[in-house]
Amino acid sequence: MSRFFSEKLFSLEPYTPGEQPRDMVYIKLNTNESPYSPSPKALAVIEGEASKLNLYSDPTARFLHEAIADHYGVTADRVIATNGSDEALAFAFDAFASGKSLAFPDVTYGFYPVFANLFGIPYTTVPLDDTFTIRVEDYANIDSTVVIANPNAQTGTYLPLSKIEELVAQNRDRVVIVDEAYIDFGGETAIPLTDRYDNLLVVQTFSKSRNLAGARIGFAVGCADLIADLNRVKYSFNPYNVNRISMAAAVEAMKDEAYFAECTKKVVETRGYTAAALAKLGFTYPASMANFILAHTDKIDGKELYQKLKSKGVLVRHLSDARIADSIRITIGTREQMETLIRKIQEILEDLT
Amino acid sequence: MSRFFSEKLFSLEPYTPGEQPRDMVYIKLNTNESPYSPSPKALAVIEGEASKLNLYSDPTARFLHEAIADHYGVTADRVIATNGSDEALAFAFDAFASGKSLAFPDVTYGFYPVFANLFGIPYTTVPLDDTFTIRVEDYANIDSTVVIANPNAQTGTYLPLSKIEELVAQNRDRVVIVDEAYIDFGGETAIPLTDRYDNLLVVQTFSKSRNLAGARIGFAVGCADLIADLNRVKYSFNPYNVNRISMAAAVEAMKDEAYFAECTKKVVETRGYTAAALAKLGFTYPASMANFILAHTDKIDGKELYQKLKSKGVLVRHLSDARIADSIRITIGTREQMETLIRKIQEILEDLT
Repeated sequence: MSRFFSEKLFSLEPYTPGEQPRDMVYIKLNTNESPYSPSPKALAVIEGEASKLNLYSDPTARFLHEAIADHYGVTADRVIATNGSDEALAFAFDAFASGKSLAFPDVTYGFYPVFANLFGIPYTTVPLDDTFTIRVEDYANIDSTVVIANPNAQTGTYLPLSKIEELVAQNRDRVVIVDEAYIDFGGETAIPLTDRYDNLLVVQTFSKSRNLAGARIGFAVGCADLIADLNRVKYSFNPYNVNRISMAAAVEAMKDEAYFAECTKKVVETRGYTAAALAKLGFTYPASMANFILAHTDKIDGKELYQKLKSKGVLVRHLSDARIADSIRITIGTREQMETLIRKIQEILEDLT
Repeated sequence: MSRFFSEKLFSLEPYTPGEQPRDMVYIKLNTNESPYSPSPKALAVIEGEASKLNLYSDPTARFLHEAIADHYGVTADRVIATNGSDEALAFAFDAFASGKSLAFPDVTYGFYPVFANLFGIPYTTVPLDDTFTIRVEDYANIDSTVVIANPNAQTGTYLPLSKIEELVAQNRDRVVIVDEAYIDFGGETAIPLTDRYDNLLVVQTFSKSRNLAGARIGFAVGCADLIADLNRVKYSFNPYNVNRISMAAAVEAMKDEAYFAECTKKVVETRGYTAAALAKLGFTYPASMANFILAHTDKIDGKELYQKLKSKGVLVRHLSDARIADSIRITIGTREQMETLIRKIQEILEDLT
């Protein structure tokens, strides 16, 4: 820390992204990316856009907002596109929780407490139940701004739309932020509820189901007033927050419903294969509706399994949160990648005996 | 404003970017972009990178940091790349002025007071002198974090390196942020001073001299401790802040010194042509070292001239700051664009008589 660093930020504990090692080529199952290339239609517009890179991107993100709005049947003034969904979350935390307080599950996306620290927002964590599922009733008497991931980060557990509505309706005087980064792998989005609830903000990303993690595109949908608030923050921070090429590619990715359906279907199928194969090897896991599985076995500690897999060229994620430190989080890659993973795990387990 | 908007942000007055009208095709001289396409070498890497967009970009931005570091003869741990230089400025304001105070010129980049409001930082403005130039001695007794643009935004006026060093050396216990968005059109960068001054942060952008406004790439250079502070903020806000394609393109743009030299030389030559032609028409302007000219004539008010030019298909920028509201800010485009501009101004002036 330099002698000039703001005292207000002394307590920052920055987020640690999944490792991107360069010592060898890994089967990369550690950051919940899609194993499939972006839509060919998204790729097709990139070259034409590239030659115009000397010009700023459209700060109103009009075409992207319209593409997202059309897809979800809302008006474009209820959508804001951001530089990845992390930026949407950051704007939302600042807009709707600064000077107030936050509540979120004890096991969830590790960035929520980081954002809270950045904006100086006090927070409480609410334990997931024994199946790693959010108990909506636990939030009934909490006045804080609420943020949950659905499906939940790290665990993959899912709340049906009726439970989300219960959470939002419990207290109409607090904002509920639902982070739907993983919603497209079998879940049902809460975006339609934003028609009726002015205290619901839904955040999504193009990084997972739309195969564009490297493009950095996220978005939020809510009532027009919530979105206007987020725009006030955006225009006070980085009006040209979304770059030209990513914006053009994202428009096409959103419109290409056939490719989206094909990719997400493959992930769901491969998740089924992986879950069954892990069960056969004696693993347990919460039922996942995401593109990852949080897997645990009594035969080997999570950290050790992560390390052994890494030495065999397969990268999964080990998280040190107390309740899941005994597990590994495995991103669903291609069928071939998952077959390799299962083979490597089998080898590791055999070596133990 | 929604009923949920944080009271802490009530005083936000978001920045207004230059207009991007769609009613007709304009000669666009209003947002200080380069009129030239990006380096062919930057364009050449985009296609290969596009097919990997399903994977996250490198959060450490290693290759880009190395390219920038090599160019300026510093180590890579003294560089941080950001999503446009606005993000670098935002991180720096938060890291080095939150909980303290800021000082900047009365006429400068309009985003400085906006960032200050966003982070709740009190600020004082220091008047430019009668030639619209920063008087370094005016900052001698100011303890606040200082931010200046050099060349100055809106006016194009320039401080030589000796004056920047004087400003930085005046008070070693405050950070001086020098925003060099326009430095490459004839100025000398202060980056070498960061070897010796731990209180100097230099911010630059790829949006002007490197023809990549739409890619959103900025960066800051300082001592390793200042950069580590900015990384703490980055990793608490948006670790994957720079997207994959822009990062790859920026590496090539930084390395392609011949193309950079060719484009900036053309802008400087065309600025000379434009300045002389404006003088012939009776305009005055501060001597500009940037890729724009702030031009004024007693014959017609700045706002009126802006409007008349717009109706003739030429977009310049009119800023409402009291001291420059009588002027228009003209981006230096191609020689052909500027000849058209001069012809249109001539027509407008003739119509007045």
